[in-house]
Amino acid sequence: MKKNIINIVGIGPGDPKKMTIEAYETLYSSDTLIGYDKYLDMLKDTFPDKRFISTSMTKEVERCRIAFEEAEKILEDESGERYFKVSVVSSGDAGVYGMASLMYELLPEYPQIGINVIPGVTAALSGAALLGAPIANDFAVISMSDRLTPFTEIEKRLILAAKGDFGIVIYNPESKGRKGYLKKACEILAPYIEENRPVGVARNIGRAGESFLTMTFKELSVYSADMHTTVFIANSNSFFVDGKVVTRRGYVR
Amino acid sequence: MKKNIINIVGIGPGDPKKMTIEAYETLYSSDTLIGYDKYLDMLKDTFPDKRFISTSMTKEVERCRIAFEEAEKILEDESGERYFKVSVVSSGDAGVYGMASLMYELLPEYPQIGINVIPGVTAALSGAALLGAPIANDFAVISMSDRLTPFTEIEKRLILAAKGDFGIVIYNPESKGRKGYLKKACEILAPYIEENRPVGVARNIGRAGESFLTMTFKELSVYSADMHTTVFIANSNSFFVDGKVVTRRGYVR
Repeated sequence: MKKNIINIVGIGPGDPKKMTIEAYETLYSSDTLIGYDKYLDMLKDTFPDKRFISTSMTKEVERCRIAFEEAEKILEDESGERYFKVSVVSSGDAGVYGMASLMYELLPEYPQIGINVIPGVTAALSGAALLGAPIANDFAVISMSDRLTPFTEIEKRLILAAKGDFGIVIYNPESKGRKGYLKKACEILAPYIEENRPVGVARNIGRAGESFLTMTFKELSVYSADMHTTVFIANSNSFFVDGKVVTRRGYVR
Repeated sequence: MKKNIINIVGIGPGDPKKMTIEAYETLYSSDTLIGYDKYLDMLKDTFPDKRFISTSMTKEVERCRIAFEEAEKILEDESGERYFKVSVVSSGDAGVYGMASLMYELLPEYPQIGINVIPGVTAALSGAALLGAPIANDFAVISMSDRLTPFTEIEKRLILAAKGDFGIVIYNPESKGRKGYLKKACEILAPYIEENRPVGVARNIGRAGESFLTMTFKELSVYSADMHTTVFIANSNSFFVDGKVVTRRGYVR
């Protein structure tokens, strides 16, 4: 019997209204919220009376260990004592490039603790909703970050996704340390994707400064993305309507 | 200037708590909810006083046209008159095999109406949360339904996704009319995926009778799926922990 369960909560893109009711209630009933500092900042107005423990971007292992250690602590309250209710926060969905995987990797070291993952709206979904319906059929999600994945593997996946005519969603297309990666992705994809293919970019989804833009694949290669941008390359059966990008499902009208 | 905006709302897997706050508020403030009858049934307890207009599974075009026609209607209320607030409901996310795409296809025929898509938690995310973290790295979502997509295309996408070592999420693996499709998918994938690869299935996610099961790829080929099952084949860098399937991200511990 596990003594305490840590919740790993996907909070969606940022705006608390884009969180699920389950995620909201879990955070509301938690004692301690743990996460990357930028994500915790999004929650401080909504949950002002929580204990917040933040770590910086690359400190994922440390962040997870803090969560397990906090969950092992005993909280004294009126009714006697109970364990701290701890939630680890990921933006978007905790299972997609989020903290769920690493928490499970470390779990065997903390036999008295369990894990519960609460899903959230990842950027592939929140970005698609802004842009129209660019992933209405089969799609692939690929991160351009080569911090944990060799670039040769990213390159291979881009090519196979394009050959399969998947809608392609690119996370982390660029960062301060990875300038020019989106252009590089476009060069890799160019042999497989027509220049006039509908494409969209969504930036700061569900946050201050939210914006989106639709364009052709040709225009994407000169677009200046950053780490808050998500890129959507619709499949070959897609079109523009009302300024949005839409992938046809094939219904007979 | 559009006269009325139709909301296309992804309600998540079924349990109203897995809906976003934005989706809940949008349905709450709507006059009319339109959707496939099984999905509307999930909402009747939560929103008992709405007008519900349901159509059966294959009547997607009819369902969309009803939505547009309802949105053109004028509702007389105390303040004089206003337009019906109409929401079209999809389970999961409306942009992933949902109603958003077809609504955009028909939009040009209704120039006075606009569309607003509200994202929700699709089965790839809600199922993954049950199963552990099986799509923590790059992943592909593929539907086995060949009602709108030729089977040769589905086959091609399965092979390319496996060659790319994507986590693979299979929607609609079987139905009454498509018996044996999951077995067929396994036969297609077998040359590329080891027999002991961690795999998971989630059934009736967020609904009565919710269940999940983890197993090896070899065992998947004899698993009996139905249309309420979502299948997850984790990538080659995945393992079992605590009965769950987890894809390693590659953090140095």
